[in-house]
Amino acid sequence: MKLSDGVEAAIHCASSLAGLEPDETISAADLAHVYGLSSTYLVKHLMKMVSVGILQSIPGPKGGYRLARDAKDVTLKDIVFAVDGQSPAFRCKEIRRAGPKPLPSDAYPQICGINRAMLKAEKAYHEALAQTSLHDLVVEHEATSDDRVLARGCQLRDAMVRKQNTNRP
Amino acid sequence: MKLSDGVEAAIHCASSLAGLEPDETISAADLAHVYGLSSTYLVKHLMKMVSVGILQSIPGPKGGYRLARDAKDVTLKDIVFAVDGQSPAFRCKEIRRAGPKPLPSDAYPQICGINRAMLKAEKAYHEALAQTSLHDLVVEHEATSDDRVLARGCQLRDAMVRKQNTNRP
Repeated sequence: MKLSDGVEAAIHCASSLAGLEPDETISAADLAHVYGLSSTYLVKHLMKMVSVGILQSIPGPKGGYRLARDAKDVTLKDIVFAVDGQSPAFRCKEIRRAGPKPLPSDAYPQICGINRAMLKAEKAYHEALAQTSLHDLVVEHEATSDDRVLARGCQLRDAMVRKQNTNRP
Repeated sequence: MKLSDGVEAAIHCASSLAGLEPDETISAADLAHVYGLSSTYLVKHLMKMVSVGILQSIPGPKGGYRLARDAKDVTLKDIVFAVDGQSPAFRCKEIRRAGPKPLPSDAYPQICGINRAMLKAEKAYHEALAQTSLHDLVVEHEATSDDRVLARGCQLRDAMVRKQNTNRP
């Protein structure tokens, strides 16, 4: 079982955007540079997050990406579902119905018990993912990281951030 | 995220074997026939379960497979780990260290917080898988299945079961 590689990039980028002010954005090229990724690869995953309302894509020469909602309202589950899809990891092929002496469909009114048990476990996984928000990740990062990591993060952030033209004070 | 196809086959086969008496086995060919699978495909997954002590492979013309331990002591987690492997679904590539202004390794004494949160969620998944045993699946199957399904299961079982030569009374 393996999540799409894009999940790691998406969570890191969304976490970086969680540290911005509402009138600030970061471009895909800058995010890709900071994480050592190709822009083309990254844009694909950023746009998946745009399509489900996690990120906003602001057009124009000073445009870029920012969170579409509060960092407390974006969870790991939201990002995993956006990037990796929502298909269950266990995909029942109904092999209980295969083989000799087949029965009509109405002999199987319920979902296979094995499928049910596997999906129940996936639900526990999704619930656990939903318990961690981008805000939680940022708070934990700031509380537990080495000072050099935090200083580097600030430097990179300052170099990347683009202020939008707004009427904010 | 997707589990190996073999997981469904492995759980169904192990559940079938959970209904046997200790001196009984079923051959891979018969299990494959009942679930509409190829023997070659199935043996690969049965042998993974043998290698971790879930199943026993009994040689000889009357040989076959049987559980290596009580059905209450084999969980979905055991089977998923045996067939799909134990690598985490989230594979951290440490992209936090990539990009400009790299820091020495000692600036990162702890596992990445994103990786930690993702692995915590996977732990919840594994714990949920560990809560369902083969015994639970058999009990639920017998309690909830249509009578035609149960009757077919008995017919197929009786046609497949091989009694070993033992000194049991």
